[in-house]
Amino acid sequence: MRAGMKISRIGEFELIERIKKKVEKRYPTSQNRRIIVGIGDDAAVIEPYGEKLLVATTDTMVESVHFSTEDADFEKIGYKAMVSSISDIIAMGGKPKYALISLALSKDSLIKDVDGLYEGILKCGKKFGVRIVGGDVVSSPRNAVVTLNLLGEVERGRVICRSGAKVGDGILVTGNFGDSAAGLEILKGRWKIPGKSDYIRKCKKNLIKKHLLPQPRVREAEIISGKRRATAMIDSSDGLDLSVRFLCQASKVGAKIWLEKIPLSPCLKYLISSKEALRALNFALYGGEDYELVFTVPGKKVEKVLREVPHTVAIGEIMPARWRIRYLDKKDREVKLKGRGYEHFL
Amino acid sequence: MRAGMKISRIGEFELIERIKKKVEKRYPTSQNRRIIVGIGDDAAVIEPYGEKLLVATTDTMVESVHFSTEDADFEKIGYKAMVSSISDIIAMGGKPKYALISLALSKDSLIKDVDGLYEGILKCGKKFGVRIVGGDVVSSPRNAVVTLNLLGEVERGRVICRSGAKVGDGILVTGNFGDSAAGLEILKGRWKIPGKSDYIRKCKKNLIKKHLLPQPRVREAEIISGKRRATAMIDSSDGLDLSVRFLCQASKVGAKIWLEKIPLSPCLKYLISSKEALRALNFALYGGEDYELVFTVPGKKVEKVLREVPHTVAIGEIMPARWRIRYLDKKDREVKLKGRGYEHFL
Repeated sequence: MRAGMKISRIGEFELIERIKKKVEKRYPTSQNRRIIVGIGDDAAVIEPYGEKLLVATTDTMVESVHFSTEDADFEKIGYKAMVSSISDIIAMGGKPKYALISLALSKDSLIKDVDGLYEGILKCGKKFGVRIVGGDVVSSPRNAVVTLNLLGEVERGRVICRSGAKVGDGILVTGNFGDSAAGLEILKGRWKIPGKSDYIRKCKKNLIKKHLLPQPRVREAEIISGKRRATAMIDSSDGLDLSVRFLCQASKVGAKIWLEKIPLSPCLKYLISSKEALRALNFALYGGEDYELVFTVPGKKVEKVLREVPHTVAIGEIMPARWRIRYLDKKDREVKLKGRGYEHFL
Repeated sequence: MRAGMKISRIGEFELIERIKKKVEKRYPTSQNRRIIVGIGDDAAVIEPYGEKLLVATTDTMVESVHFSTEDADFEKIGYKAMVSSISDIIAMGGKPKYALISLALSKDSLIKDVDGLYEGILKCGKKFGVRIVGGDVVSSPRNAVVTLNLLGEVERGRVICRSGAKVGDGILVTGNFGDSAAGLEILKGRWKIPGKSDYIRKCKKNLIKKHLLPQPRVREAEIISGKRRATAMIDSSDGLDLSVRFLCQASKVGAKIWLEKIPLSPCLKYLISSKEALRALNFALYGGEDYELVFTVPGKKVEKVLREVPHTVAIGEIMPARWRIRYLDKKDREVKLKGRGYEHFL
């Protein structure tokens, strides 16, 4: 089977031709008049967005650091890479539109792996309205490296930066936190869960799926940016703790977060025994890759926004900068935590 | 000295902060009202180009494949990475504007190496009007990987694709070919040149400089796209032979090239002994990284364009596709060549 060959058998240029055909087949450039020049030239050329602003982000994923083929097939890796970039664009209030993909692959990579990677990227792209318009394929001596560059558009009044939070704003989040990190621990066999009931099995599967195939909060982000009530927003790719820290740092404010208000999924709560309450909190605060939204709205508008945006809860309040980030228990007493978010170089 | 520390000592977030400050110091975002959001948020936000089209390209360079710290310091590596991306944008008729930079670095990388890399990227950016608006820094287990994403603008009527060449068009090129490849061979000590005169030393130095610090043909590209006479264009990053092949493939045509018309620099000609004429040709056709422009214009306009565009010569003619690419000697006899361009996976 041809797809089982190593890419060194067909070479760079045939590989690019193959990718180009694959992309064109599923998303013909001719069907999108805004793509003037797509894959296959020195650069892509795109029709501008009229009055809208351009949003651009880049994300790099390195084999054995950000993904492992032991844990996921290439299709899942491609899908998740795209989710991560889409999440960055929507967290600015933007609409993701066009992607350029750089691949650094070892000579021993299989054609079917590249096919799988693109399959995942294209599936996720199709689902969320993103088209591949260009890229680069080069050789890497060892680990594969996938870089996604995503371009999008945003209306001027809809841009939401990390830097707009004000003292007194409520801190809101979509979805649940910690599922992705918990799923990875289960997948890696590092978290042994006693019990073998159907529900436990189902829950374990759910969490693993949250890790391998997370979903960006596209609809919620659109509502949040459309209503124009949010003062700041960030996506939670590095865990809730770091997301809040980044947002507060950019806004030059502090925050208080009530630990028991941090949303955990029913599955995570079910799998965590009462003795391990801290484990769930560690997943939620320091795990990352949940791709939920963390945003702030003026105190008076919190109730309204909670009704407008599905899957959203309030977890804290923006405080003066001298507060830094404080975690509180039910009785407003500070809880000192020792964990920290994912740091690439430490 | 702090800059001599490994990046693992300061961590990802401090490193990003350092890069952000470095970029902002030299190119304040506040001085460019089109950059609505620069480095430090989930994505960059840029003012659109009015009636102009958006041009986007991505290029990945991998340590030990595309660059080696044995041959060049990090500043030169950064500079050259930027040249390569700028060359892609101008070869479409575009004007480079904004860059997003993804770095995958090993924990053992030194802060001063990252500083150097950005220094080169910023120097080249400043020279050619490009601003850094965002990026990503992640960890790599071994080889460093640098991905540049460059955004630019182009007027609708000025876009020049690879695919517009017609039978009868003249094939024109800027500058000289083979210097970069010759420079690399000298640098690596694989090409031993007898003689030690001042002129030989100067020439060797010249060629090495062409390899380490190539210059994109920004001015020539602007004239070519502004005059709107070119039917197709490509930059010669993979060598003249592959550039012509890509252009012909995209245009569904063939070509004839007169070997003795391929421009070689006085230095390269001086260093090549008469016994080694083929060596110069190999550098020019299959070497790559000259970042010259290869473009086609209707036969009747060749003379006019040669007067309009500096450093430009005609080397051949577009022929029907069945011709494929034929190299001819002075007497129009075909010369069979055995080399081939750089293929990443072979």
